[in-house]
Amino acid sequence: MYEGAIQDLIDELGRLPGVGPKSAQRIAFHVLSADPTDIKRLAAALSRVKEQVRFCVLCFNVAEEEQCRICRDPRRRDDALCVVEEPKDVVAIERTNEFRGRYHVLGGAINPLEGIGPDHLRIRELMARLASGQVTELILATDPNTEGEATATYLALLVKPMGITVSRLASGLPVGGDLEYADEITLGRAFEGRRTL
Amino acid sequence: MYEGAIQDLIDELGRLPGVGPKSAQRIAFHVLSADPTDIKRLAAALSRVKEQVRFCVLCFNVAEEEQCRICRDPRRRDDALCVVEEPKDVVAIERTNEFRGRYHVLGGAINPLEGIGPDHLRIRELMARLASGQVTELILATDPNTEGEATATYLALLVKPMGITVSRLASGLPVGGDLEYADEITLGRAFEGRRTL
Repeated sequence: MYEGAIQDLIDELGRLPGVGPKSAQRIAFHVLSADPTDIKRLAAALSRVKEQVRFCVLCFNVAEEEQCRICRDPRRRDDALCVVEEPKDVVAIERTNEFRGRYHVLGGAINPLEGIGPDHLRIRELMARLASGQVTELILATDPNTEGEATATYLALLVKPMGITVSRLASGLPVGGDLEYADEITLGRAFEGRRTL
Repeated sequence: MYEGAIQDLIDELGRLPGVGPKSAQRIAFHVLSADPTDIKRLAAALSRVKEQVRFCVLCFNVAEEEQCRICRDPRRRDDALCVVEEPKDVVAIERTNEFRGRYHVLGGAINPLEGIGPDHLRIRELMARLASGQVTELILATDPNTEGEATATYLALLVKPMGITVSRLASGLPVGGDLEYADEITLGRAFEGRRTL
């Protein structure tokens, strides 16, 4: 509906996840009236991500060098390894300040409906890391949904025979939440995992 | 929380209207895994909007030449002029195929709370266009809200003494809507503007 460049931008923005036609148009008009240096910075940031960001050769987290910041950090424990689905899960766990070990990013979860099997995830690379014998505890921090649970179960079966302690993040009521609004499964898990005070 | 380039991109995306921290992160990871040519196209589209798109010297719609597509079109009527707030309103009206005249984009509406007075809009330029005497009907298609109504009232007072027919878009029930869900003001306007069949 618009002329040339502005329509091109609306089309390109509309291809991004979570950006509908209305927000694409809104962003495009923002770009049109924004400070040119701001837009140059955004365009440069886009290009730089494609040029500079890669995946850590050890854990497959996002990295700007061969290894990511966490793998390079000599103060982290080498005996605890936390398995997550995506790089954003690393960030979420880092924010808690609860874990001082290393990570392994699978790049997804087992999902037969979408044709994602164990071979599509970095499980072979995980097994290679565990084979060195340094890791004594493996924490399976995949998502608490069907795919994440299936992936955790699969990995537990694979790793337990190696004599490594395998754990899974606790399921239960979210802190600050309301008991009456919890779904049955979450509430059931919270009961199951109740602790003596 | 992320390293270098990916965090820069999340920050830049988070400055766009309607993009919160979660969607900025989601888009950034999409960029990371997307086809490099797609991202190059997006970055180029951003730059091109800043370089190529400007405002039509006549109507202030978006344009890639000195005049916009509509102002350049010799088949459009010169006697009817439709006043809108923003370029996206031009697109909305064009979609109806109801209007074959020209447009004038004010660049906003009178809004004393935000310090936007008549001098901040392209009202002087509108008056200059009307002074040529070609226009016989002026359609005030500003938004049907307080600011749009105020702007329309202001313009009507200014233009009526020139002997030009001034009209305002009809207010009423949206087609396909439900009468019981219409707000009192809309329903009141629909009553007021009822037509004999």
